Amino acid sequence: MPGPLTTSSRFAYATLVTNDTYAVGAVVLATALRATRTPHTLVCLHAPELGPEATHALAEVFDELVPVATRRSADTANLQLLGRPDLDVTLTKLHVWTLTQYEKVVFLDADTLVLMGIDELFDREELSAAPDCGWPDIFNSGVFVLRPSMDTFHRLVEFASERGSWDGGDQGLLNDFFASWATTPDRRLPFVYNVTPTSVYTYAPAFQRFQGDIKVVHFAGPTKPWQYARTSDGSPIGKGQGPAGDVLLNLVQRWWTAFTTIESRFGHLLFKSNVGST
Amino acid sequence: MPGPLTTSSRFAYATLVTNDTYAVGAVVLATALRATRTPHTLVCLHAPELGPEATHALAEVFDELVPVATRRSADTANLQLLGRPDLDVTLTKLHVWTLTQYEKVVFLDADTLVLMGIDELFDREELSAAPDCGWPDIFNSGVFVLRPSMDTFHRLVEFASERGSWDGGDQGLLNDFFASWATTPDRRLPFVYNVTPTSVYTYAPAFQRFQGDIKVVHFAGPTKPWQYARTSDGSPIGKGQGPAGDVLLNLVQRWWTAFTTIESRFGHLLFKSNVGST
Ligand SMILES: O=c1ccn([C@@H]2O[C@H](COP(=O)(O)OP(=O)(O)O)[C@@H](O)[C@H]2O)c(=O)[nH]1
Ligand SMILES: O=c1ccn([C@@H]2O[C@H](COP(=O)(O)OP(=O)(O)O)[C@@H](O)[C@H]2O)c(=O)[nH]1
Ligand SMILES: [Mn+2]
Ligand SMILES: [Mn+2]
Repeated sequence: MPGPLTTSSRFAYATLVTNDTYAVGAVVLATALRATRTPHTLVCLHAPELGPEATHALAEVFDELVPVATRRSADTANLQLLGRPDLDVTLTKLHVWTLTQYEKVVFLDADTLVLMGIDELFDREELSAAPDCGWPDIFNSGVFVLRPSMDTFHRLVEFASERGSWDGGDQGLLNDFFASWATTPDRRLPFVYNVTPTSVYTYAPAFQRFQGDIKVVHFAGPTKPWQYARTSDGSPIGKGQGPAGDVLLNLVQRWWTAFTTIESRFGHLLFKSNVGST
Repeated sequence: MPGPLTTSSRFAYATLVTNDTYAVGAVVLATALRATRTPHTLVCLHAPELGPEATHALAEVFDELVPVATRRSADTANLQLLGRPDLDVTLTKLHVWTLTQYEKVVFLDADTLVLMGIDELFDREELSAAPDCGWPDIFNSGVFVLRPSMDTFHRLVEFASERGSWDGGDQGLLNDFFASWATTPDRRLPFVYNVTPTSVYTYAPAFQRFQGDIKVVHFAGPTKPWQYARTSDGSPIGKGQGPAGDVLLNLVQRWWTAFTTIESRFGHLLFKSNVGST
């Protein structure tokens, strides 16, 4: 029997879009989440400056759009970061802690793609995340479980303004703040919840062996799936050679397959240039 | 109070050298281990076919040299692998389980370099290892803690002959055999015990931040430190640009600094070609 709050209003998935470039990623992500039949709310934090087309598409696929300030002058929290312009985007992601209408939130970067249901993540505690391939004793901040709290939000902002971020982004900051992650086994999500296929070049056999287990792909790094050129039959064209390149292209192809399901509704809104099509 | 066995005879560090190419790595590794003032025995498993110069150098720096068969026909265990020539080197590493005169062994690839004392690893249980950067839910088999046992050895050989190895090496095999590693937090060594600087390209800021904590560097991958060309002042010449390349070159430089301490004694025995010098 549901209590006063139904499950779907206690828990939410959230992502972030600060500019039109990432909107297509968020729309595909939301559509892929819906396909898992999750009962939870889909929230998109977004910059108020987004174009009307992107905003329209996001409003169609997310349950809730939450505008967040991306400029320092726009809110008092950001004011504390005066003199740290490099931390602007970092600070924007922190706004996910302000979603206090939800008990727990799973944050997903807009460059992630959910391949199967991941609602079991809501059984996890703050801050749960998967190891980062580059240095696996810290977590990758593209996918994480959190408990919204204005207190935590303000402490994070203060922490950021005092300490900055050693990698220039939210990942360095969040790892310093949630430093006990490395020594708290329950907080370590299996890698399949945040698989960064760029590391495919390091260890192709593992990707081949485990690719059927991948729950969330995270296209971390400079080249996002929507930036791939494609052949006339829709296959992404990649530079990678051999088995490693094949695995990566296969995952990029999965993103494009998900895109296909929304292409007729939103494709024209999300791709103003011809990026991604040939 | 020491019991009937002193600490130094209960525990051993072991590495493997199947050909002259890796002998220089093993000699540098042993010298670096000695520099940590470890009381434990240093063992080198080696192919009987090694040249006399390499064998001489290894005999000088290791406490014990243990010849192991690298060819299938040479022992009965290997006979079980008939028809699996790809598993020859894999099987050779498994011989570390035959060192039953020791209660516990820390195996280190010959392409590792110990930067500070790691004797605390002997407090760990079989099979303890650090995550692999390419797929951090499996362990990297360049550094691991084991309990020698003929029973385990035979079971490993049988497992290998039945299942093979999905990555063609010992890492795939050992991960399948010790499959509970991923879900047994005590077995997960911190990454600093097996840092593979090839992943520096993925996440340079983390390497810069944590490089002072590195206990063991593992030069996994095709280019070993002894294969770097060097300038006339001894600095390794690398292709890497920017901070990531600098961190890698710095670690390669540490290997060459360790090499310098043995160069006058063994350099002429270990480098027959001019590889590694300019
Ligand atoms: O210009 C930007 C950069 C980032 N993001 C958001 O911040 C996340 C993190 O950035 P990104 O994924 O590019 O970093 P990476 O995972 O490649 O390190 C993105 O997925 C988006 O959700 C955004 O909206 N606009
Ligand atoms: O031809 C070889 C290949 C490997 N090895 C030994 O097996 C280990 C594993 O191989 P390698 O380090 O080359 O693999 P990687 O760590 O690069 O995957 C080496 O460090 C050596 O100890 C060896 O003696 N001769
Ligand atoms: Mn990302
Ligand atoms: Mn190695």
